[in-house]
Amino acid sequence: MEYEYILEFTVRDYECDLQGIVNNANYQHYLEHTRHEFLVSKGISFSDLHDQGLDLIVTRAVIDYKFPLRSHDKFIVTLNLRRDGNVRLAFEQEIFRIPDKKQIIKAEITGIASRNGKPVSPEPLIKMLGEKS
Amino acid sequence: MEYEYILEFTVRDYECDLQGIVNNANYQHYLEHTRHEFLVSKGISFSDLHDQGLDLIVTRAVIDYKFPLRSHDKFIVTLNLRRDGNVRLAFEQEIFRIPDKKQIIKAEITGIASRNGKPVSPEPLIKMLGEKS
Amino acid sequence: MEYEYILEFTVRDYECDLQGIVNNANYQHYLEHTRHEFLVSKGISFSDLHDQGLDLIVTRAVIDYKFPLRSHDKFIVTLNLRRDGNVRLAFEQEIFRIPDKKQIIKAEITGIASRNGKPVSPEPLIKMLGEKS
Amino acid sequence: MEYEYILEFTVRDYECDLQGIVNNANYQHYLEHTRHEFLVSKGISFSDLHDQGLDLIVTRAVIDYKFPLRSHDKFIVTLNLRRDGNVRLAFEQEIFRIPDKKQIIKAEITGIASRNGKPVSPEPLIKMLGEKS
Repeated sequence: MEYEYILEFTVRDYECDLQGIVNNANYQHYLEHTRHEFLVSKGISFSDLHDQGLDLIVTRAVIDYKFPLRSHDKFIVTLNLRRDGNVRLAFEQEIFRIPDKKQIIKAEITGIASRNGKPVSPEPLIKMLGEKS
Repeated sequence: MEYEYILEFTVRDYECDLQGIVNNANYQHYLEHTRHEFLVSKGISFSDLHDQGLDLIVTRAVIDYKFPLRSHDKFIVTLNLRRDGNVRLAFEQEIFRIPDKKQIIKAEITGIASRNGKPVSPEPLIKMLGEKS
Repeated sequence: MEYEYILEFTVRDYECDLQGIVNNANYQHYLEHTRHEFLVSKGISFSDLHDQGLDLIVTRAVIDYKFPLRSHDKFIVTLNLRRDGNVRLAFEQEIFRIPDKKQIIKAEITGIASRNGKPVSPEPLIKMLGEKS
Repeated sequence: MEYEYILEFTVRDYECDLQGIVNNANYQHYLEHTRHEFLVSKGISFSDLHDQGLDLIVTRAVIDYKFPLRSHDKFIVTLNLRRDGNVRLAFEQEIFRIPDKKQIIKAEITGIASRNGKPVSPEPLIKMLGEKS
């Protein structure tokens, strides 16, 4: 499978909880950081956008937890972007442990663009991100 | 609507990110803490269970983000538990800002019971939790 | 001993790390949240101050870790404020497990007031906070 | 200056708070992760040590906050280890933004080795870590 963007991480001990595995909430951090680095790779900064009054807002997260990560595991987070109707963007994201490619997470994160609190067309943003058709 | 368990929180400033709103991952912390306190209210400790080799594992989270929480907002997290097939538990959870009852989050968190890494029947656990039929 | 402000907490499981104890960084969260709630109790909001261009900046933290907190421990965080020279505020803060009053943390957090990135006199702020002389 | 260990990071947006700068507690995460990766570089895993009943416990943190990090800043965390009396280890750690070498944090983190809750000599550990004399 082909991905538009891939980012590599190492689990940090403070991300693990008393079960000795990465706490569920931290996977959202990994997924978010990958989305933001994807934007950066396209010349777009999430914090600059915010300073300009344009926010990307997550409206829905569907996350399947397949297998837990543990202390010092290395892993990649993948990203594919597609349009979802007229106003939504859908980020299909997966996490794989490396080097054995064990699937850890399969997620779909849906978002909208919002200017000063009002939803706006994601069209200009999608153009910048170079949507594949 | 009736809830099996309700827990009240206040947003802490460190939970807000540079958009000035609660970071998405922190809602999972709120949801998780409510589930664990629900267990405690039934005389079950998540960390004691872990020490006995029994872990509750989240396998799927579906979270709809309806409206963001901000610094110092007060809110409640609700919980209803139902069986989902033979091996899964489903926690239906919502977050409402108080006192205006604005809906913030609607989530369904699915989990399984696992002993030493193998899925086990959630039946004894459900009995302890007093499943409504 | 007398304290100007006291806030009560319960350890949340996600705050514990793989050692089964609260991760060191989280004590700073507890200390910070207590300082911010102290401000709120005086009618001052940290986030409102920020929106007005006035930030409170921590310049030094000295934290003695006496004993660890564990899952579901209840505890209080105490706060005393004193002036430290002309431009600095010093927050003396301690954490005690309850009900047994076991000392967990002894900390001194030093800060300055900063307007648009420049240090300013903390005098007006101290007046609002009702400094004891 | 020479350092025994250096680790490079990028600020992740979720580490920034509503002031738009890295939240104070997260610097402790950076410092801790660097200490643990230093151990790994010497063939020692913090989580393996824990599973063997040996914990490294931080007893004191002195952290000077010199300048804040912001979204997407790149930085290094440095580490030098020295013995502090008979039972303590002192980690001298600094954070510098790169590439401009702006000093961000200067910290001294003191710890002890503890076996099943009792302090033990750090001698074997120091030998493994190749203390400079």
